[in-house]
Amino acid sequence: MIKNILIIGCGLIGSSILRAVHSQKASKNIYIFEKSKKNISIIKKIKISCKIINKIENISVNFDLIILCTPMSQYSRIILKLNKFITNQTILTDVGSTKEQASKMVKKLLKKNITWISSHPIAGSEVSGPKFGNKNLFKNKWCILIKEKNIKETHLARLKWFWKKLGSNITLMNSKQHDHIFSITSHLPHLIAYNLVKTATDFEKETKYNLIKYSAGGLRDFSRIAASNEIMWRDIFFSNQKNIITAIDLFIKNLNSFKKDIDMKNSKKIIKKFINTKKVRKKIILLKQDINKPDFGRS
Amino acid sequence: MIKNILIIGCGLIGSSILRAVHSQKASKNIYIFEKSKKNISIIKKIKISCKIINKIENISVNFDLIILCTPMSQYSRIILKLNKFITNQTILTDVGSTKEQASKMVKKLLKKNITWISSHPIAGSEVSGPKFGNKNLFKNKWCILIKEKNIKETHLARLKWFWKKLGSNITLMNSKQHDHIFSITSHLPHLIAYNLVKTATDFEKETKYNLIKYSAGGLRDFSRIAASNEIMWRDIFFSNQKNIITAIDLFIKNLNSFKKDIDMKNSKKIIKKFINTKKVRKKIILLKQDINKPDFGRS
Repeated sequence: MIKNILIIGCGLIGSSILRAVHSQKASKNIYIFEKSKKNISIIKKIKISCKIINKIENISVNFDLIILCTPMSQYSRIILKLNKFITNQTILTDVGSTKEQASKMVKKLLKKNITWISSHPIAGSEVSGPKFGNKNLFKNKWCILIKEKNIKETHLARLKWFWKKLGSNITLMNSKQHDHIFSITSHLPHLIAYNLVKTATDFEKETKYNLIKYSAGGLRDFSRIAASNEIMWRDIFFSNQKNIITAIDLFIKNLNSFKKDIDMKNSKKIIKKFINTKKVRKKIILLKQDINKPDFGRS
Repeated sequence: MIKNILIIGCGLIGSSILRAVHSQKASKNIYIFEKSKKNISIIKKIKISCKIINKIENISVNFDLIILCTPMSQYSRIILKLNKFITNQTILTDVGSTKEQASKMVKKLLKKNITWISSHPIAGSEVSGPKFGNKNLFKNKWCILIKEKNIKETHLARLKWFWKKLGSNITLMNSKQHDHIFSITSHLPHLIAYNLVKTATDFEKETKYNLIKYSAGGLRDFSRIAASNEIMWRDIFFSNQKNIITAIDLFIKNLNSFKKDIDMKNSKKIIKKFINTKKVRKKIILLKQDINKPDFGRS
């Protein structure tokens, strides 16, 4: 057990960490900082014993761990405030979805000799805010820790211990590799989902057909991801700009190839592609990254 | 109740019709035709009283309703066989996902004075085959009936009665409108899902990263649809070629616009787009086209 933890930002992820830390007894004292009055009133109703901090500047506690759970665009403002009291006993981490740009910025702004080890729990949802928080959100999910040079092994061990305590499985990678991988497994899928729903609504406006009524044939699946938090996703796309643009180009290249297959009625080529994509679903289920029930077990 | 029904093709949809007809007592006698020996042995295990027909050519029953539940590429071969015994007492329908091209072909091949009213139950799954069949598959789902000129009202009423008996809600439209709408709500989403998974596997081969392990961040959602039956989806893409190509072009145009927003870091534009797509999810849930639980209720 650690002694003092500070969670900055208590939305879906922050409030899930609060619930999980409490339920797993991962820290003796829990401090939280949250700007939104509405969110604070929701958190108070959970009735988890924690100290709500009104101003980051006025803190005199020695924290073992501080976790940033705000949109990434707020990091720089917060880091400048943390600099006023943070000591080299503290590990500073975050839960952001891109790593390279944020790490550069944090290293530039953060006081010398403070440990920054970035985390990315692969857990989330299309809903946001503390009312959807869940103490089991991190259970059996991957948590990526970003291992850069000169990280203190004792600090890395403490952070590993923390996420394991919350139920996560740990993988280490560097920020460049992280942003490359997640541009394909997460950022591109989100952008594609936003784009598909945008395309459907454009089409609906033009044709005056009531499309959404018939969305159960496929569109509804994409609408879930396309309902994700807009600030969080803007920050992700802007901070992983280069990788995402490369991913978009690769996607369009492949889509044009499918268009050609359809235009030429090239049965052999299209069947081969579909058989290969089917194998991926099996692999995902085998790796326990999705539920093994048809239609996500919805029906 | 009708007297005699023939279900041709007993995969996911055909076997679900079999189960639903039996459970709702929609027909006194059920006849089925299925080529695959494996499928027949699965159907026999369900222990629903039905007559299995070995050869379509040798039938002397007067059917009230014949339903084609095979891939669309098999229709022409089957229609020529049905012509040998079908009478004007019978309604011939299907459950195919595209309508314009199939209707033209059927009208050309089918004997004069036989009623053809095409159906499209908006129900399905990424899994195929009779073992996944479900008697409630059509319950509270839309079933589109294609109303062309000169359809006998008594026949249309009988077909409406049939799908309602299976739990569906009925909408009428013409084949052109149908193929236009579903090119956006169903065909494009499937193609995009196939293309996203293809892009991810291409990227994995190139980089040697183990991507699939981290698919829970978004990719897994697309992998479900991209595991759909390859023959069925080839037939859909080929038979709704023109609409799908138009939809692909619209999709790429919008994607290039997103790419520009990301490249220029145009926050205002991108946030506006995301807020609009979020509204679509709410509308889909309001229209009861998806489950009202975060993450499809998976976690």
